[in-house]
Order: sequence, then C-alpha cells, then structure tokens
Amino acid sequence: RPFSTASRQSLRIGLIPADGIGREVIPAAKEAIIALGSDIPKPEFVDLIAGWECFTRTGVALPEETVDALKNDCDCALFGSVSSPSRRVVGYSSPIVALRKEMDLYANIRPVMSVYPSQKPSIDLIVVRENTECLYVKQETQQQGEHGREARATRLITERASRRIGQMAFELAHARPRKHLTIIHKSNVLSVTDGLFRETVRGVPLLPEVNGKYNDVEIAEQLVDSAVYRLFREPEVFDVMVAPNLYGDILSDAAAALVGSLGLIPSVNAGDNFVMGEPVHGSAPDIAGKGIANPLASIRSAALMLRRLGYIKGADRLDLAVDQVIREGEILTPDLHGKSTTQEVLAAVLKNL
Amino acid sequence: RPFSTASRQSLRIGLIPADGIGREVIPAAKEAIIALGSDIPKPEFVDLIAGWECFTRTGVALPEETVDALKNDCDCALFGSVSSPSRRVVGYSSPIVALRKEMDLYANIRPVMSVYPSQKPSIDLIVVRENTECLYVKQETQQQGEHGREARATRLITERASRRIGQMAFELAHARPRKHLTIIHKSNVLSVTDGLFRETVRGVPLLPEVNGKYNDVEIAEQLVDSAVYRLFREPEVFDVMVAPNLYGDILSDAAAALVGSLGLIPSVNAGDNFVMGEPVHGSAPDIAGKGIANPLASIRSAALMLRRLGYIKGADRLDLAVDQVIREGEILTPDLHGKSTTQEVLAAVLKNL
Ligand SMILES: CC(C)[C@H](C(=O)O)[C@@H](O)C(=O)O
Ligand SMILES: CC(C)[C@H](C(=O)O)[C@@H](O)C(=O)O
Repeated sequence: RPFSTASRQSLRIGLIPADGIGREVIPAAKEAIIALGSDIPKPEFVDLIAGWECFTRTGVALPEETVDALKNDCDCALFGSVSSPSRRVVGYSSPIVALRKEMDLYANIRPVMSVYPSQKPSIDLIVVRENTECLYVKQETQQQGEHGREARATRLITERASRRIGQMAFELAHARPRKHLTIIHKSNVLSVTDGLFRETVRGVPLLPEVNGKYNDVEIAEQLVDSAVYRLFREPEVFDVMVAPNLYGDILSDAAAALVGSLGLIPSVNAGDNFVMGEPVHGSAPDIAGKGIANPLASIRSAALMLRRLGYIKGADRLDLAVDQVIREGEILTPDLHGKSTTQEVLAAVLKNL
Repeated sequence: RPFSTASRQSLRIGLIPADGIGREVIPAAKEAIIALGSDIPKPEFVDLIAGWECFTRTGVALPEETVDALKNDCDCALFGSVSSPSRRVVGYSSPIVALRKEMDLYANIRPVMSVYPSQKPSIDLIVVRENTECLYVKQETQQQGEHGREARATRLITERASRRIGQMAFELAHARPRKHLTIIHKSNVLSVTDGLFRETVRGVPLLPEVNGKYNDVEIAEQLVDSAVYRLFREPEVFDVMVAPNLYGDILSDAAAALVGSLGLIPSVNAGDNFVMGEPVHGSAPDIAGKGIANPLASIRSAALMLRRLGYIKGADRLDLAVDQVIREGEILTPDLHGKSTTQEVLAAVLKNL
C-alpha cells in the first residue's frame, strides 16, 4: 500500500474523460464510486480536461492546469481515452503518454482474467508494463538522406526504470498464489537495451533491500514474438508478465482479445505517490455518443485505483458487482453481444453493490 | 517474377540449416525439392554454415564464406533457424538478421492460411514485413548515467525502405482476390518514424511509375496493438498487412498462433535479386534432435522460394502435397497433435507429389 489512508477525510479524484467513449464511461465509474458510500472517504471529484478535442479547441492536448491540479489537488485520478488525429499534426502529442511521464506513473498494471470461471482456456494474468521509457520517450528526428527522408526514434531503457518496474512485478507475483514471473524481451536482437532490461529485472531478487523476499517467485523469460504466440496457444502458462513499454502495450491488447472484449480490461498507472485508473480500451469513435460503451473496464479501473490506495473493501465491492453482472449475462453492452446501454449496465452494477 | 528463369540449366540452392531443428527440417525440404524432378532446373545444393553453434565453434555466427557463396554461387537459399544464447555474449549477433541485410532481402513475406477449408475463423492473410531496418539496425549504445546504466537503441525508418516494402505489399494485394491492404503502425506515439512509414506506403499508388496499377487496392490502417487484438477477434478482416520490421515479427507469430502451429508457417526473405526461404518457427531446442520437428513450414518455404523464382508448377506441386497431408490428418508431427516423425511426414509429402 503505497499511501497512508488513515488521515484522509475526503478522497480527491481527478476525472479526465478526454475523448470519445471516455466521456461516457468515466461518468459511469464516478457514479459507481459515489455509491460506495462510507466504504471510502467522501469522494470529491475534480473535472479536468485533456485530449484531442481539447487540442483542437485550445491548441494544447494536456493543459498545465490539468497537471497542476493532479499534482497539487488530487489523491488519485481516472483517465478515459484519447482519440488520435488521422494524420501527423504539428504540436499534437498523446496526453496520456505525457501524463504517465509527468506524474512519474512508472508502472502500468493490467490484470486480465477469464470472464466465466469455466471458460477455456482459463486466463488469470497481469501484464506489468513499464510506463515511462522505451520508444515512448518520443525522441524522434527526421532528415533528408541520399535516398529520401530518414527518420529515427530513440528507444531508451534504463537500469533505474527497469529495476523499479521489476520490483513492482516481483511484488505482485509474490502476492499471488502461483508466484510466477515471465520477463518479456527481445534480447536476441536488442542485446544491449533488452539485455539491460532482462538482467536488471533478474537482479531484483538479489538486491540487498529485498532481503530474500522474492526467493519464492519462479522466473521465466520469453521473447516478445513467441510470448504473443504462447499467449494464444497456452495462456494458462502466464501469471505475471513484465515488459518494456511497447511490448507491454501489444501484449495487454493480445491478452484482452483472449477474454472477450477490451471493454472489460482495467488498468492503473501507478507511481510511488499517485495512481491513475484507465480502461485499456481506446476512444472508439465508431460508437462514441451512442450511449452503448461498456463501462465495466472503467469501473474495474476505479476498483484497481481504490485497491492501490488501500480501500480494499470498496474495491472488492466494485469488483464483485461487476463480476456478477458479467456472470448473469443479462445486461451487457454490444461488445459482449448484449443489447444494453452504458446506463443500464451501470444500473445493474449499482444494484449488485 | 523478379528473375529470369529461361536460361537456367541448373538451380543452385544454398542450404543453411543453422541450429536446432533447422538441421532436421532443411534436409527434408531438400528431399522435397529433389523429388520435383524436371519441373525445375536440376537442383544443385551448396551446404553453408551459420548460427549459434557455428559461433561457439568458429567465433563467427555468419562466416564470410557463407555470404560470399550466397552472393556468387547461388540462385537462392533455404535458411533453417537459429538458437540464441541465454545471456548477452560479446561478439555474437543474430546471423539471420545480418543475412537479410547483407543480401538486401528487404521483404519478409509470410502467408498464413487456415489449415482446413472449414476452419473458423477463416484466415487467409499475408504479413509483409520490412526486413532491413526499424530496431533491427541494431545500433545500440550503453552509458553510465546518474542513476545507473542507460541503454539506447535507434529505430530507423527510411522513405526508401518504406516505399519498396510498400510496393511489394501493393503488388501482392493487387494480385489477390480481395485486394485489401492494411498498413500497420503506431503513429499515435511514433509520429515521425511511423508517420513516415504510413505516409510513404500510402503514397505508393500515386507514384508515376506505378501508373494507376494499384488503384483497385483498398487501403486500411491499424495501430499495431489493436491489430493484434483484431487479429484474434476477427482475423477475416485482414488480407495483406504491411508492417515495419518489429511489428511484422510480432504480427506473424500472432497470426501463426491462430492457424494451429508455427510449424506450418513459411516465409521468404525477398530482395530484387535473391530469395531465401525460411520457416517462421525457431530452433526449438526442446525438441531438437528427436526427429519429430514439423518439416511442413520448410517445404512450404521451398515452395514460396520456387514460386518467386518463377517455377510455379514445382511450387504448386509442393503446396498441394503439403495441403493433402494436412487435410488427411493421419501423418502429422506432435505440434499438430500427431504422432509421426519428420521423416514420416516427409515421406507422406513425397507420396502426394
Ligand atoms: C493511446 C496510446 C498512446 C496508448 C499507448 O500506446 O500506451 C494506448 O494504446 C494504451 O495502451 O494505453
Ligand atoms: C531469430 C530472430 C532474430 C527472428 C526475428 O526477430 O526476425 C525471428 O523471430 C523471426 O521472426 O525470423
């Protein structure tokens, strides 16, 4: 539990719906949090803006006021989803990528679980994605070469970031029944960068401050390409997977596909001092505004956020209510082959709370 | 047809089994080629070495003699698979990555098809992977920073390489019934490098020399993470996919998982003047030496190689024989839940030729 919960009279939650269906599912998560009543400190919501629409309106995708409010006036936050321009737009840069870095939310934790207990294959894994570096440092250049334009991007992997994401991954693996951690890399090609990632993560159990705590965690490795292959062929082999940023992005979408819908997969962006829930799905422009977006990933993201803040009872109640809605299978949005609306699914969750 | 076939008295084929099961499946492909008889020019095989075992023995993973022989003494080649050391080894670097660059085999073409006509979902797609740049340029550095080691890799995307892989992809899409091309990128994060890739590929149909030929190809785009997601959820939407090197590596493994086994998926590394067949699977150390490796991906790779060289009849015969073995389902290796050996599967293919 990274934060002390004892002293809080109220819980200040930044809400950044951003674009598309983010504007439908974040309000739903807000209602679910409110409904927890006295299981959490009185929630106070801080409405904040960011995103592509924000950019087209104000010229800035992530306003300073939003970052300031998160840093100075919020205990935690929920982020919706961002749209991307369909061509390169000068000055625009993804606000979620920027936020993760600005707030030093170095771990993106994405649990993926089978929906029904009897579902085959049975999936119960967590993708722990490094959230601040790799190609996401966005250091790109372009120049005119002999044969036309040449563009270069830098992929940064540091010992420091690899160690702290490794620590987070070992901590999560250690707390789970299977205690199994797979390190994802491509060091057969990227021997220096992915070599550093692999070595550093492998070294975490040996750190003096760890004091042997993780000796019960079994360590495996998998090249990213074969990890995607195995994820489809035998997902039950995986428990916790730790990966550099881009591989983690791809792997979590792959895992989501296995359990039925991205509309179910929550995440938190976690740092040492802040946590931001975020559904893994995108802004889904094709269904935005129709009132049929699945709010379950956002409600689960709220639960993950509360759990990291130490409000276990509130988190458990949200998760159980969501599980029950899914298990009953009556009131679901179209991505799960249901016919219900966002509001109807929210109402079903609230009823089960 | 990139090469003239008219004048050849014999077909000189370099064989580089390299490591692990490569040494079992490449000899099987050789037998299958020999069995084609007069449908191709008399095959002459040139045995060549490369790989991890070669490195441990000679200190070099890709001997100069191998590259020289391919350049000066071969019309085409078959490559097996390479093992990777389990830790970083100074001086070792993947010979297949080096070969693709040395021979300027800029396109990696990986067709993935459902095994049984009735299989659901029905998959019939080609991953066209750029084969010479992206993170595979292997320009990596490491230095001591304030908080420990920092490693950097360069991701290179050039207009020239993007254009020629784009041309290859449009050519393939144009020749297929569906004529559909999906450009894979992550330009919401990598706006400069993937932006250049996307724009350049999109620009191919407008090139003066193309002369409107590709106007019948429908173009779509997909971010790499959601492409993996969709590949699992609705693979039938894809026809030809064109991708930068690393995304193509991951996507082709993902597609392979959908059709049952990597042991079925062939590829060619194609340039303007040379073609090298290569099964997509790895060296599979767990089963190497047991005589149970699936030779079908290698035989199909030989067929792809012959097809690109213009020997359509020989290629068709190999493909049909492989298809029949799979359809009969009696003589299959363990990766396809069969009990047969490499030699028995090869014999079944030869019988069906
Ligand atoms: C929107 C995009 C920048 C983002 C990412 O690549 O991290 C998304 O795909 C995610 O997984 O959160
Ligand atoms: C062995 C490895 C270097 C190679 C690659 O990444 O290209 C392999 O995964 C492939 O797909 O051919």
